[in-house]
Formats: sequence, C-alpha cells, structure tokens
Amino acid sequence: MILERKDVLGLSDFSAAEIDLVLDTAETFREISTRTIKKVPTLRGITVINLFYEASTRTRTSFEIAAKRLSADAVNISSSTSSVVKGETLSDTAKTLEAMSPDIIVIRHPCAGAPHILARLLSQSIINAGDGSHEHPTQALLDMLTIRHKKGAIQGLKVAIVGDVKHSRVARSNIHGLTTMGASVTVCGPAMLMPRAVERMGVVVETNMKDALRDADVIIMLRMQLERQRSHVFPSSREYARLFCLTRLMLENAKPDAIVMHPGPINRGIEISPDVADGPQSVILEQVTNGVAIRMALLYLLAGGRQ
Amino acid sequence: MILERKDVLGLSDFSAAEIDLVLDTAETFREISTRTIKKVPTLRGITVINLFYEASTRTRTSFEIAAKRLSADAVNISSSTSSVVKGETLSDTAKTLEAMSPDIIVIRHPCAGAPHILARLLSQSIINAGDGSHEHPTQALLDMLTIRHKKGAIQGLKVAIVGDVKHSRVARSNIHGLTTMGASVTVCGPAMLMPRAVERMGVVVETNMKDALRDADVIIMLRMQLERQRSHVFPSSREYARLFCLTRLMLENAKPDAIVMHPGPINRGIEISPDVADGPQSVILEQVTNGVAIRMALLYLLAGGRQ
Amino acid sequence: MILERKDVLGLSDFSAAEIDLVLDTAETFREISTRTIKKVPTLRGITVINLFYEASTRTRTSFEIAAKRLSADAVNISSSTSSVVKGETLSDTAKTLEAMSPDIIVIRHPCAGAPHILARLLSQSIINAGDGSHEHPTQALLDMLTIRHKKGAIQGLKVAIVGDVKHSRVARSNIHGLTTMGASVTVCGPAMLMPRAVERMGVVVETNMKDALRDADVIIMLRMQLERQRSHVFPSSREYARLFCLTRLMLENAKPDAIVMHPGPINRGIEISPDVADGPQSVILEQVTNGVAIRMALLYLLAGGRQ
Repeated sequence: MILERKDVLGLSDFSAAEIDLVLDTAETFREISTRTIKKVPTLRGITVINLFYEASTRTRTSFEIAAKRLSADAVNISSSTSSVVKGETLSDTAKTLEAMSPDIIVIRHPCAGAPHILARLLSQSIINAGDGSHEHPTQALLDMLTIRHKKGAIQGLKVAIVGDVKHSRVARSNIHGLTTMGASVTVCGPAMLMPRAVERMGVVVETNMKDALRDADVIIMLRMQLERQRSHVFPSSREYARLFCLTRLMLENAKPDAIVMHPGPINRGIEISPDVADGPQSVILEQVTNGVAIRMALLYLLAGGRQ
Repeated sequence: MILERKDVLGLSDFSAAEIDLVLDTAETFREISTRTIKKVPTLRGITVINLFYEASTRTRTSFEIAAKRLSADAVNISSSTSSVVKGETLSDTAKTLEAMSPDIIVIRHPCAGAPHILARLLSQSIINAGDGSHEHPTQALLDMLTIRHKKGAIQGLKVAIVGDVKHSRVARSNIHGLTTMGASVTVCGPAMLMPRAVERMGVVVETNMKDALRDADVIIMLRMQLERQRSHVFPSSREYARLFCLTRLMLENAKPDAIVMHPGPINRGIEISPDVADGPQSVILEQVTNGVAIRMALLYLLAGGRQ
Repeated sequence: MILERKDVLGLSDFSAAEIDLVLDTAETFREISTRTIKKVPTLRGITVINLFYEASTRTRTSFEIAAKRLSADAVNISSSTSSVVKGETLSDTAKTLEAMSPDIIVIRHPCAGAPHILARLLSQSIINAGDGSHEHPTQALLDMLTIRHKKGAIQGLKVAIVGDVKHSRVARSNIHGLTTMGASVTVCGPAMLMPRAVERMGVVVETNMKDALRDADVIIMLRMQLERQRSHVFPSSREYARLFCLTRLMLENAKPDAIVMHPGPINRGIEISPDVADGPQSVILEQVTNGVAIRMALLYLLAGGRQ
C-alpha cells in the first residue's frame, strides 16, 4: 500500500485506512532506533528541509533524527537565523526553497493555514509540524501509535482530552484522528478555553474533570500556555491547577489501567502533577520515542515508499 | 581544466576562461538536483564550514544543499549562536577554524574585505558569500549561468542593472563578471545611490529608467535595502517605486524577449511589481536553482576537481 | 583496552590509566584529519546530540566535526532556538531526548553539575562540554595531549596556570588531570580570583606571576571573563594586564623551551600579548587541532570502541 497524497497537512481529511497505513509503517520503523547501527539507506539522496518559524526542541529534533536515520539530508532553517527578518513573504520563501529541489518540506508556523499555502504552491511534499492553533498531525499520529501499542486498538476506547482545547493544535488533530478511528472523545477545560460548537466535531464536552475522566481508557493532558496568561481572559495557574490538574487523586476517576499522555513540554504542578507525569500510567516518554518512528514513516511514505 | 586559484573572493580578477570553466562545470551539476537520488559521492570526507556573520536563508541553504549533494560534510556557524559574541577577532576565529582542518570555508560578513583577510591567513580555500557592499561572486556567477542558459551566450548582450548600485555587492560582482564576458552593462538608480566614478568600471550610467532599459536583453533588479531608509540620504519607498519599480509598463521599454532577474528576497511593489516578478519574463526562481549548481561547481573545483 | 565508564563528566575521578587510554586513542585519530578524505565509517549509525545552553563556536564545532569524521549523525540543539525558552526543566528535556535514542549527549550548561544530573537520569553516555565554573574535561584532555605531544610526557613537568582560577572550569579540570599524571601545578592570579583552599587540590599558589613562571615547562593562560568586570570585585583590564599579562618579557621567567597554551578565545593585550600568542612558543592552534582528535577519541571510546 502507498500513501496516496502529496502532503500531510492535518488529520481532518485522513481516512481510517490512511491512518492505519501510517501507524503500520511506523511500527516497522520503531525497531531501527533500537539497533546499535540506527541507520538504513532508504532515503539516501532525499533532501528534507525543516522550516521552523517557531522555536522547538522536540519536534525539530525528532524530524531531524528521523531523516538522518533514513540517510536523508536534513537542512534546518529557523526564523531566528534566516532572512525571514528581511520581510520576505511566506510564498516567496517557499518558491525559493522549491527551486533548490528539496523533496519534503516540514514547516512549523504560528499562523493557521501556512502549510496549506505551501502545499498549494509547491510541487514538493509538505508536512505540517504545527500551524498556529490549527493542526499538529504528526503529534496526533504518534499519540495514536502509542494508544494502539498500549491498548491493542483505538476503536471503542474512551479518550479524555483536558485543558486549553481552544488554542490546542494537538487537541484538534487528535479529535479528528481519534473519532475517525472509532474512539469516543470527551473534551474538558474551562468554558472560556473551549472552542465554540466543539460538539460538532463529534466530541462530548464536560466542564467537570471528574466527569470527563469517568471510564476513560486514555487521558491526553494539554500544555497550559502560560504565556497567554497575560491576557485577562485567562485563569491564574493556581486556579487552573485546582480544577484541571491531573493529580493522583483525580486519576482515580479513570479506569485503573488508563494511560496518561502529554505532548510536552510539561508544566509540572499546573496541568499534571509530578507523581502522575512520572508514574506507572504515564506513557509520555514512549510518545517521544514513537514520534521518531511516525516521522520516519511519513518521510518514507511521502517519498513514495510502500508498506 | 582545473581552477587555478585557492579562493573565490570576487570576480574583479576572474578571467573569461575561468568564468567559462565555472559555468561549464555548473551545467554538468545542474542535472544531479533533478534526479530521484540527488547525491553523488564526489566530495566525501571533505569538510565545508559555512561561517555566516549575517542572517541568510537562501545563500546559506544553497551552500549547505550543494555540499550535501556532493557528500561533503557541512558545518554551519552563525554569529547569533557563536562565541563571536565574546569579542574574538576575525583572524583568531579564522585561525581556530583552520586548526580543525576544514577544506573550504564559506564566509558572509558585513565588512568588505573580510573574506580576503581569511584568504591571506589560511591555507584553506575561502569562498566569499557576500562581504558588505563589496562583492558577492557566487550570486554573479549564478546570474551569468542563468543568462547563458536563456540567451545562449553573454557576449554582446545589453544588461541593465537597476537600483541601489552603490551599496550592492550583487551589482559590483555582476559588473565585473559581465563586462569580462563581453556584455555591455548599463546601471541606473537615484543619483545618491550611484557609486562615484562608476563609469570607470566600464558601464554606462543612466538616471532615467526608461533610457536604461532601452534594447536591454537582461534586466537585473536590485533589492532596495529598506533598513537603510532611516538614514536621511534615502528616498521614501513610494518615491523610489514611482521612478525605479519594474512594472509591466516599464518593462515594455526593454527588448520583448528580455529576461528579468533579481537576487532575492524581493520587495514586491517597491523595486519590482508582482506581475513582473511572477511573469513570463522572470527567471528569478531559475536563478535559485542555478545557485545550487554554481556552488556545487565551486566546491568541486576548489577541492581540486577538473572539468 | 576499553574505557570502563558511561560518562565523561570531569577529570576529578579519572585515573592515569584512563587518561593515557584517551590520549593514546586520540593520537591514532589525529591522522584522519590530515587525510584528503577525512572520514572513517567507525561510528556510522550512531547519533550524537550537542545540547548547548551557552553560545560556543569552537567547542560545538569541534564536537560536530569529530562526530562527522567518524560518520556519526550530529544533531545540534542550542538554547537560542529551542523550547528551553518554554521553561521545561533540564531533566524533562533530558528524558525527552533520551526517548529519541541518541547514543551520546554532549552538554554545555551555565550551571555546575548539569551534566551529572543527565548522567544519573539517562542510560546514554554524557560528555561534559563545560558546566559553569566546574569542569571542562575535554579541554583539559586536549591540553594534556598537546603537552605530551610537545614534551614527550607529562610526569615531572612544572605547569603554571595563570588567571581567574576561581571561575575557570578549564583550570579545575587541568588541575585534576595534570596532578593525576604526575605534573606539579602552580596556580597564579589576583587573590580575589583564587578559589578558597585551592592548595588542597595539590597545587602551589603564587600571587606574583614571575614566581609562578620560574622553571615552568608549560604555561596555561586563562581567559579573562571581561563580562564579569561589571561586578565590583573585579580588577580593571588595565590593572589586570599590568600584573598578569603574559608578555615576551614575562615569558623569560619560564624555561626557554616552555610552551604557551590558552583555551581561547584569547583577549589580546589583556591576559596574553599578541607577540606571545603568535610567537614560537605558542601551541594555541595545535590545541584546537588536538581538540578534534580528543573528541573523536571520546566519542569512539564511549560508543564501545577499544584501543
């Protein structure tokens, strides 16, 4: 099977079969990172550009390691050292990069829709590594790989997503992916941090965290964007933590074998307590490991590989 | 034939035979970037350092991709993350890098002459990737490759260079290269942005853009350095655009098959109108593609390769 | 022989046999950087992360070149472009990186002990590339390689270390390493820049530079951290230079064949005069060359290589 699309922009239009293809491919790549020689020649001579308009450690590093383990050439461009400062438009930057004949461009951008602009303009494959509050499909795919790995299947699970759903690209991509795969999704958070008409995305909304966690198989905690707190529409960290922090006590409301996830970086003591983050139900670090495998799978499939 | 020089610092002392050698070599490298596997083992084990004291996307990325497609190891140093902040002199930084045994050092520096200091100090090959308002030889070489590709030859063509000629390293290198290759060059721009005694470089000076474009085969538009406008010697963008923007109407003054070039990043609506930048006579993106080929050719020739 | 330790955090607990092993291994790697093809496949498929929380040119570049010459994949993370700005704890960053399965993490951090935290937390090998005012073991190892190369052996030599000993990780690592190898070490500098009870580290303390240099075989000048001068406990540069600058005249107090070392970047005219820095007794650039060899040796040994 091959992935019959040029770009990975979001999960809103991914079919269950496509998600399965990506997850299956990633399963076969997981093993490479456990070898002594963590490198295969699969993508030799392929050029991957990581175009990051926002600071990032984990996502950029994950894509770079994924590319290198497949023997692709990875070229990093970050807005802090690039001529983006010279005020070039995004589409001119994109056309310029296209003219250097990369095969895949990975882009993170603070504006929703930026990857879609590139995808329309360029003949190359585009991977969205996070666009504003819109989508972060590779994060949702690695989350689903982690869930499938731990639970055997996604179909029929109850997944609770807790936090600032409104501004979270991680939440949005996961809602699309998880509902497509047959999970039932409950979202929970302060009313002011819920997107309008979120129910239309096929999710249940709860304002009380205990209710949201009841019978949950999977809990995805979202990062509280502390930098937003300067705007007054936001609760204080202390207030937020009192109502929505995943403590050990709160975790007891979920199923005893529920797994706890977080896209990182975590704010210890705000959205998640340290004992839960480091506890036996946490799969946060396995998510990171699966992130490399998912990105290897996507680079491979977009370069024309088959599973 | 081999390139019998250690460094590429500027085109002021390049012979026509040398320019032909570089362009011919670049022609053979153009094809590599069109392959599925865009990589040849030619420069395996060669170390290229990209030492950038100014922010840059296209030039640094172009050199990095060129190095990697030849299997060289590319190491990037940008002033924003280096100990340049600790106040080390340029020559001490250079001698330190030399001691790590790179083969080629690519340098961009805000001060004219910086690459020449390195070339005198170091046994390694130095490539000037832009030094202040002085020279940018790889840009002029890729411009000439583009012209030759489109027009068959450079000899006998009329080339108009329009804009802030005084502060433009692109203009300076192109004037040297194009006159050496037998083109006739006309420069045009506001009087205050013309270098003194520019006629001595063998060019015609026009202050009226229509006159400059008459019978032109090639038009090279220069980037307006908007950051200079804070100094009062500078016209406003609106004033500048009214007189020196390459619009479709203005373009009609040139030959019907004239090609339009720009080193990028472009200021749409200031020195060039969007319809011209994206129009059928524009070869701006082909310039970028040729940039990778020119840099591959120079790395190859400086590492001792022969054509 | 193999290096029987997971990490290289400092030289305080290195045995003479271990130091000899590293130096002997580095000797065999020195030659690779003198070849036309400066690359061996030894560490193919090994991932090295350079995690730098402080700006650096020479150390980061040296590690990156060392990794690439051994065919390892090098991934750079600098605090200026990473999510360190998002306030993640060091241990969470470390666990996240661990989950991406690197083999070796090289860390520079402004806080003493940061590499030790990583070493305890992670299964991977950690190399300390400088932690606060604590240790900089790879610098001391390359210093010792240089001394051994020039003097035949370290045992029995008199080494003078001059400058801000109190804040110098270079001094601290060299004191540990050199005394372990049987050198006699004298430290010298302004009283306020001497660590308390430094004699307990097995060194002689002199406040007069002439006395410190008497009969010295090796002089290690420390970098004056000019940025510290804003605090009032610090002498002015002029005052400092008058008493502690290594001038040609001052150098005459040492043995005629004494070698002059400096970790760089140097402050010309402050701790060392230009004629001495560039003079026949200076081995400052050979130190840089040996730095690449030492880092190749450490990467090789930590990856399980044997000498």
